[in-house]
Amino acid sequence: MSYKAPLRDMQFVLYEVLNGDKILPELPGCEDATREIMDAMLTEGAKLAENVLAPLNASGDREGCQYDTETHDVKTPDGFPDAYRQFAEAGWTALAGPVEYGGQGLPHTLNTLAEEMVCSANLSLGMYPGLTHGAVNALTSYGTDELKEKYLPKLISGEWTGTMCLTEPQCGTDLGLIRTKAEPQADASYAISGTKIWITGGEHDLADNIIHLVLAKLPDAPSGSKGISLFLVPKFLEDGSRNPAFCGGLEHKMGIKGSATCVMNFEEAKGWLIGEPHKGLQAMFVMMNSARLMVGLQGLGIAESAYQVSLEFAKERRQSRALSGPQEPDKPADSIMVHPDVRRMLLRQKATIEGSRALAYFTAMQLDIAHKAESAEEREQADDMVQLLTPIVKAFLTDEGFFCANDALQLMGGSGFTQDWPVEQFVRDSRITRIYEGTNGIQALDLVGRKLGHAGGRAVKRYFAMMDAYLKTDGGVPHSEELQAAVGRLQKATMWLMQNGMGDREQAASAATPYLRLFALTAVAYFWSRMAGVAQQQLNDGATETDLYKAKIETAAFYMQKILPQTLSLMAEIEAGKDSLMALTSEQF
Amino acid sequence: MSYKAPLRDMQFVLYEVLNGDKILPELPGCEDATREIMDAMLTEGAKLAENVLAPLNASGDREGCQYDTETHDVKTPDGFPDAYRQFAEAGWTALAGPVEYGGQGLPHTLNTLAEEMVCSANLSLGMYPGLTHGAVNALTSYGTDELKEKYLPKLISGEWTGTMCLTEPQCGTDLGLIRTKAEPQADASYAISGTKIWITGGEHDLADNIIHLVLAKLPDAPSGSKGISLFLVPKFLEDGSRNPAFCGGLEHKMGIKGSATCVMNFEEAKGWLIGEPHKGLQAMFVMMNSARLMVGLQGLGIAESAYQVSLEFAKERRQSRALSGPQEPDKPADSIMVHPDVRRMLLRQKATIEGSRALAYFTAMQLDIAHKAESAEEREQADDMVQLLTPIVKAFLTDEGFFCANDALQLMGGSGFTQDWPVEQFVRDSRITRIYEGTNGIQALDLVGRKLGHAGGRAVKRYFAMMDAYLKTDGGVPHSEELQAAVGRLQKATMWLMQNGMGDREQAASAATPYLRLFALTAVAYFWSRMAGVAQQQLNDGATETDLYKAKIETAAFYMQKILPQTLSLMAEIEAGKDSLMALTSEQF
Repeated sequence: MSYKAPLRDMQFVLYEVLNGDKILPELPGCEDATREIMDAMLTEGAKLAENVLAPLNASGDREGCQYDTETHDVKTPDGFPDAYRQFAEAGWTALAGPVEYGGQGLPHTLNTLAEEMVCSANLSLGMYPGLTHGAVNALTSYGTDELKEKYLPKLISGEWTGTMCLTEPQCGTDLGLIRTKAEPQADASYAISGTKIWITGGEHDLADNIIHLVLAKLPDAPSGSKGISLFLVPKFLEDGSRNPAFCGGLEHKMGIKGSATCVMNFEEAKGWLIGEPHKGLQAMFVMMNSARLMVGLQGLGIAESAYQVSLEFAKERRQSRALSGPQEPDKPADSIMVHPDVRRMLLRQKATIEGSRALAYFTAMQLDIAHKAESAEEREQADDMVQLLTPIVKAFLTDEGFFCANDALQLMGGSGFTQDWPVEQFVRDSRITRIYEGTNGIQALDLVGRKLGHAGGRAVKRYFAMMDAYLKTDGGVPHSEELQAAVGRLQKATMWLMQNGMGDREQAASAATPYLRLFALTAVAYFWSRMAGVAQQQLNDGATETDLYKAKIETAAFYMQKILPQTLSLMAEIEAGKDSLMALTSEQF
Repeated sequence: MSYKAPLRDMQFVLYEVLNGDKILPELPGCEDATREIMDAMLTEGAKLAENVLAPLNASGDREGCQYDTETHDVKTPDGFPDAYRQFAEAGWTALAGPVEYGGQGLPHTLNTLAEEMVCSANLSLGMYPGLTHGAVNALTSYGTDELKEKYLPKLISGEWTGTMCLTEPQCGTDLGLIRTKAEPQADASYAISGTKIWITGGEHDLADNIIHLVLAKLPDAPSGSKGISLFLVPKFLEDGSRNPAFCGGLEHKMGIKGSATCVMNFEEAKGWLIGEPHKGLQAMFVMMNSARLMVGLQGLGIAESAYQVSLEFAKERRQSRALSGPQEPDKPADSIMVHPDVRRMLLRQKATIEGSRALAYFTAMQLDIAHKAESAEEREQADDMVQLLTPIVKAFLTDEGFFCANDALQLMGGSGFTQDWPVEQFVRDSRITRIYEGTNGIQALDLVGRKLGHAGGRAVKRYFAMMDAYLKTDGGVPHSEELQAAVGRLQKATMWLMQNGMGDREQAASAATPYLRLFALTAVAYFWSRMAGVAQQQLNDGATETDLYKAKIETAAFYMQKILPQTLSLMAEIEAGKDSLMALTSEQF
């Protein structure tokens, strides 16, 4: 029972729903992203994920990473270095990288689809190149030409990997508390000293060099988060000498055991400034934002894998008879696919995964448009959408990735709880995605505290305009009543936040988590309506894949009837306000 | 940061809310259950849980159980045998056992409170004596006097332990598929042959003997679940010889690694019939029902432990400033207790745990009344309540145990994901409680398929009468509006089930899971209203523990405003019916 990339579902969203094969090749520099080329790449990516990455997922979990206290080296699980090499050599690290530094310049959207497959197959292994993307983005946006020329080509080719060194023992969410220091040196470099924790891929044996992007404070730094700068600190310097940036140990974690989570000690390590002094957070957010989208895809990827296992289990496992009478009287019992409660768990996964996929791919396409469209207006409009939807994709898809993996486990009963099946690992691995790159609570605060108010609320106004225009489509849209009701609730909640949260930030913060979920459920409903519409049109046009399109139509109905009503209770939770949250003193808990 | 039994909260529910110190000692045989004696026992139980069981929880998880392929023996983690001995010697296995076989005859309710503490401290260790209870109950109800005399005293003293051998590779939920055979022997014993899986405590080194209760089929058994008989199969026979009931291996599991989950091979092992031939399911349900209540307490126990860890973490961890301005300006940051979203996660746990505790203790008291009250009417009434509420306690408390542990982990961010803290283990350990003793989906089907219709719907009618009487209390009750609305929804959903589910069992099954949750949320709201009322009365009467009672009042408000509204969406999910669940063919998934 091994992962099979859901290529047909991915194509349905990318081409039939989002018109990616028309929109993407029209972007300057993306002319190569034709349907033929994208299909060929997806097929190759699927093979790599299925045949190279997936077979190492369970063994990587059992073996974990090993730390050598003498050499400070880290050994990744057997097979990881070779699989990573195949991944890089096949061009996957270079896919969306800038052409002038050896990248293929293909749309970020393609990367997104690849990320889903990679994370379905092996999240731990996928994290090493995943973190490198963030480093490449920050360096591309803020690095000097000299730094770019020295470091980008090998990061893009995958010969080297990158890290993001943010967290310290005393500071996670609150980066203003950073203590790592950067002392200016005579040669225009800096001596970086401090301890960073939870550094993914801080040390490993996959690549020849590791390029750390490190947040630190200059001697004259103002206090708080406005005094943080970003530095590039390579493991090996140009002359081949070892920079004193050593791994001090590995975390022992609930999951993603094949991913090396390192304590990193910088002992006057040589580094170079990226961007302006004290403006490191800006560059960090460039890393972070693309990383956040990708973490959302990790949640989706794991959900897809868990769903596949539980579906196959449900088809094969026989227990009891259908309530409507035996379906296969010659067998000792019917397949558990006949039981409504089993179907509930399967459909919850299916409806969430396919709807979230459309939301995620849409956001990825907006990112390409924001970067590459010719007109400034188009770019601004797309960027607004990316800003607004990034925290939603990150939080909703990772929450749901975990929930779907749990649905899969539950459906499988005791089998799901044993290590004979991969699902308990999916539950453990997916758990961290709700936390890293900003906990999902922080995503919700980002949404209500920054994104809603950004440019006078322009992004959310545009979003509602898009909903309204869709709902007014000539001839109507599928499930318009349910969608209209949910959008109405979201508008009401947004209004509530403007009226109550602008003068009282505790009110905004108390509503943040249910508001993000309300937003996400409504967004996914919008995409289910569109998917149902496209599927119906294909059937009307005489499409032969009737099972595929009928399933889309029925799953949309399930989503509207069985999942979307959660917006009712979220609305009530929001409108109840902050009082009952803030009433207790610390001692009364 | 170690577990501390929440004795004051437990006493609040048992004495102040449920009047346990008045009701229990009035039951025939329970005269000793005075407040003084119960308090003394709870204090002793707390010490044992805190000082003996809890310190072995993490080490037991790391070490796990070891199987010896040559001897078929199982070694439990270091310290487990000694801790178990202390547990038994202190009288905890004998607490509620029948006096004529060496038990103390104390109320089952006290066992329930002890179970909560034991499972907070160490679920894996608690499972060995936990399973013994079930065996004792089945043997007490259905065993011959000879079997009782031979086996009950040592099971009750804890010198021996018991198991429940139900599951086989091809049959979990559907026990009609059992293949284990029982051949009658000349000496009135039976030769039992077959393989059982997932047998908790099937083999271990805690006790001198293990008494297996085994479901098997007699040669003349009718097919299906009406042809199953129950047998007692000891590991060692009376003459000291080894009965061929061997452990064939251990499961490798996501959690409860200190609990030995065994494959058991019976190779013409000697056994004796318990109860009537072919009526084993009846006796099995006696084991199962008390076990189901106890599994609910496991969920509650883990939730309490996770809450305690996350609360202490939240008080100590400093990140960012309060949104209303710095609370401790001399410190580098405020405690994260100031943040609304952190409080949301704490209060979700607190409100769920304390409300569920009241529901669980109430159900346990009803069980004592059902067994021991003098009047048949009282017994019947209490038994109705136990029947109705058992699946609800099992499913809701274990679902929420897992959710609470996840809230705790989420609140702690990356720390929660590492093994430096106990919470990731709580998440893994609690995961199985939603599955064993009947998955929570099966609990929901039991509720709608058996319990609602039992005796013409008598139990649910009595339940609604209790709600109505409470809501009509002179002078009103706290949060009567929210409670009335939720009860109204539950009545409407019950009516929907009667109208739609009686003629179409698929309709009933499709509504089962959301209906159980709707029922549970409403039941917990009822107890929160009562708790708020009691707390207010205590304050009015001049009680000095103002923090305790104020916290109850505010937490009740949080529950009503932020959790109870989930009933809105559950109602919509129920009323949407089965169509979207049943529409897809197997191939369309």
